[in-house]
Amino acid sequence: MARIKDIGEFGLIERFRKLIKTDASVVEASGDDCAVLKLDKSNYQLFTCDMLIEDVDFTLKDDPYLIGRKAVAVSLSDIAACAGQARYCVISLGLPKDTPLKFADKLFKGMLDISRKYKVNLVGGDLSRSNKITIDVSMLGRVEKKHLALRSGALPNDIIFMTGELGGSISGKHLTFTPRLKEARFLARNFKINAMIDISDGLAQDLRHILDKSGVGAVIYADLIPLSKGTPGLSAALHSGEDFELLFTLPRREARKLLKRKLTGFSPIGEIMPKEYGFKLVDKKERLVNVAPQGFRHF
Amino acid sequence: MARIKDIGEFGLIERFRKLIKTDASVVEASGDDCAVLKLDKSNYQLFTCDMLIEDVDFTLKDDPYLIGRKAVAVSLSDIAACAGQARYCVISLGLPKDTPLKFADKLFKGMLDISRKYKVNLVGGDLSRSNKITIDVSMLGRVEKKHLALRSGALPNDIIFMTGELGGSISGKHLTFTPRLKEARFLARNFKINAMIDISDGLAQDLRHILDKSGVGAVIYADLIPLSKGTPGLSAALHSGEDFELLFTLPRREARKLLKRKLTGFSPIGEIMPKEYGFKLVDKKERLVNVAPQGFRHF
Repeated sequence: MARIKDIGEFGLIERFRKLIKTDASVVEASGDDCAVLKLDKSNYQLFTCDMLIEDVDFTLKDDPYLIGRKAVAVSLSDIAACAGQARYCVISLGLPKDTPLKFADKLFKGMLDISRKYKVNLVGGDLSRSNKITIDVSMLGRVEKKHLALRSGALPNDIIFMTGELGGSISGKHLTFTPRLKEARFLARNFKINAMIDISDGLAQDLRHILDKSGVGAVIYADLIPLSKGTPGLSAALHSGEDFELLFTLPRREARKLLKRKLTGFSPIGEIMPKEYGFKLVDKKERLVNVAPQGFRHF
Repeated sequence: MARIKDIGEFGLIERFRKLIKTDASVVEASGDDCAVLKLDKSNYQLFTCDMLIEDVDFTLKDDPYLIGRKAVAVSLSDIAACAGQARYCVISLGLPKDTPLKFADKLFKGMLDISRKYKVNLVGGDLSRSNKITIDVSMLGRVEKKHLALRSGALPNDIIFMTGELGGSISGKHLTFTPRLKEARFLARNFKINAMIDISDGLAQDLRHILDKSGVGAVIYADLIPLSKGTPGLSAALHSGEDFELLFTLPRREARKLLKRKLTGFSPIGEIMPKEYGFKLVDKKERLVNVAPQGFRHF
């Protein structure tokens, strides 16, 4: 009997996705970081959800405040990836009935503080009994039509950039990362972004999402990828998830404009190529190697 | 050490709720069936989420198609309770990796079919590994400002009505119920609804939500409450959850208008009283008794 692990996470998503039909008010359904819905003359609405589960996305050894923070931050990162502003969220929370009240308080405080910091209104929720702590955050955002960034717009000759550093996830960054809303808004207001995604499954896999959706190839340079202190190595960093940095592509002219400003926090790491080129890495010894397709998968 | 079961589900909700602050774009935050958000000149947006968990809301013995159907129907019922139209949903799905592919297919088909039937666009989701099947549906709806129904508008002398019958949940109705969107829209378009809620925790508890939010009392009549065939008795029916019928109050003049139309499916069951009166039931022997506050609680 076939099991879902036999076709894998992305296989199952594709299997479901191809059955979905939407009406003309839906600009982008399930193929991007957020769903994109018509809102008014100049804005789209963004809609996204992310579920965190005990022993998959965090453990009981983690600080409950940071678990709550992460649950909201992951959705903020999705809104950032579409260059939007976060507006509202609802939270479904499954808790074992023996959960210490202090734990629940800290969890909720973590959610509330980061919501306030990024001006998201926490407007509702659902509370349920469960055996493992389960948190699902659904978030609404807004983006000007002219600023919407999707995975699908990358073009050959675009320069590939990322924010921040790669690979801090294992040493704890997955609980304390900064969702890049400010950076995304700065980019959208001042530059023409061709494609953008947040790094949730690992740079290699997430860049591949951009390449697949855009119908292009890419080359990235090991020497240019900024690594977090203590990262075990580039290969691990490329394939491990939950960095929550932004990965985006700019046309060359826009890239030059950005580089001229000499800002820290935005690093050029490669270039979009024609589809036939594939997806390659120039390693530290200047060898050209194919990038393996693996990254984080739930099953 | 205090545990969350010590203060109970509603205690924990209140504890969290009083910490929440929202901006002026939020008309109603977490105190109703849906959050109500400003949308445009004549409409509000509705936003709600509901989490279903294996062995709490369904078991593996249930038909996966009906489990998927229920997950979406529960949110549809929340939109109906605010007299709105359902528009979009995103679904977070936690599945054990050994889940048979056939099971996943049926689960998804159940979600998809009911979404289509009620013209909801399924626009995205999140797939995660979990040890118990976990489904969280977040839904967006829309309602004309003039048609919005909340829990808080009941007034003394209002007549209390319910749709359908009470008490079929245990015998399987909780998996096959009809979300009352059509009925809610019919009511909103033709009558002035003062207050409305869907019966998810049991009639007694959900009517109490209306009374608390509206600052009023009520009397209901055992003889008037329509019971499903095979229901073990009125007391069980009043206090058991997941009927997903609508409970609403109309001013007397509106109530007369509705009764004149002699429609099946809407039953007058009692009357809103001043707050001092409390919440009472006239039983089958015409005795006036207080209604106990219990209903379904997660902990």
